[in-house]
Amino acid sequence: MSGPSKLPCIDFYFDFISPYGYFAAMKIEALAEKYGHEVNWNSMLLGVSVMKTMGLKPLLSTPLKGPYVAKDVQRLATLYKLDFTFPKAGISSPLAPARAFYWVKNQNPQLASQYAKLVYQTQWAQGKDIADHDLLAKLACELGLDGAQLKQEIDSDEIRNIVREEVDGSIKKGVFGSPTFVVDSEMIWGSDRLWMLEHLLKHGSFSPENIPS
Amino acid sequence: MSGPSKLPCIDFYFDFISPYGYFAAMKIEALAEKYGHEVNWNSMLLGVSVMKTMGLKPLLSTPLKGPYVAKDVQRLATLYKLDFTFPKAGISSPLAPARAFYWVKNQNPQLASQYAKLVYQTQWAQGKDIADHDLLAKLACELGLDGAQLKQEIDSDEIRNIVREEVDGSIKKGVFGSPTFVVDSEMIWGSDRLWMLEHLLKHGSFSPENIPS
Repeated sequence: MSGPSKLPCIDFYFDFISPYGYFAAMKIEALAEKYGHEVNWNSMLLGVSVMKTMGLKPLLSTPLKGPYVAKDVQRLATLYKLDFTFPKAGISSPLAPARAFYWVKNQNPQLASQYAKLVYQTQWAQGKDIADHDLLAKLACELGLDGAQLKQEIDSDEIRNIVREEVDGSIKKGVFGSPTFVVDSEMIWGSDRLWMLEHLLKHGSFSPENIPS
Repeated sequence: MSGPSKLPCIDFYFDFISPYGYFAAMKIEALAEKYGHEVNWNSMLLGVSVMKTMGLKPLLSTPLKGPYVAKDVQRLATLYKLDFTFPKAGISSPLAPARAFYWVKNQNPQLASQYAKLVYQTQWAQGKDIADHDLLAKLACELGLDGAQLKQEIDSDEIRNIVREEVDGSIKKGVFGSPTFVVDSEMIWGSDRLWMLEHLLKHGSFSPENIPS
């Protein structure tokens, strides 16, 4: 007597600092649902993986690439039909929202994706400061969670350790960019690779027999 | 009395060191032709733009990203239905092939794209050392050019200056990756963005009214 078979899973890694992560966050669930997959949401920190481990600079501070990205995200938002703005006061540190995300995921895993999307929209569609604990608490309240408790626990050792473990785990798995999708042994990086993720979900692999001529 | 109107142009930037540039080189002409565009082929040097100007490391030597790319290019080659191999003796310095390319383009601009594709296939499909002047000369002979002359002139001041000017020009235009496509004021980076280039060629812009709901 076996229970209902578990849906195959997409591990979805994102950093709240990343506009490309925002695009993917708003698109991934419809794609996953279309092919009967679940999505496991994981907040990572590019500041640790990219800057410390890889020795690179932040995207928007990289000469040549920075100006390209600033323009690219605007036109991608148009193509994806998503509201988009650059936060007026600058892009927030993603540490507090990452901690808030794992606090929510810890309270109720079912609400993790909704919370991540709310936080993403608050920064990248409304241009607000998502490092603000009051705002992070307010967004948790919108999902029926205890915002006061979030504020009390967001910087607790427990949550800090969870974030540290999750970020270390993402680096151990080889995740280096936001967004990254992992399905079984295949890792796909970039919101501009949703076409490739769709191919994988549809066919289960990249083997030649599934590729139209 | 006006002559025939000139076709709109895609400026295509590539580095022979780049497997993603190889993919784009083998795909760009069919796409351009489909929408009535010409392609202007420009060899650039990531070693100058990325490493010196941007302060980044070579892709395959970057922690986390290197192993990803090594696997990614194999599956992309399968998806693109292109022969692919990693050169056994390592990836060649792209300086000699860039000089050979501009020597060919200087001799006969009509042969530039054919020569670039031959050089790309020689490294990325056959795994040969494209820094070898004899091999670069042989490939020029295949197109009816004077290979002995290529060997004599490849390191001349004239060709070195052309390469320097072209590479400087690419950086001034903001080109930082291989492949990069420039159509009017729009720059698109990455062989995985051919879908986006196609949208641009089809509609002429990224304005919202051309985006299907």
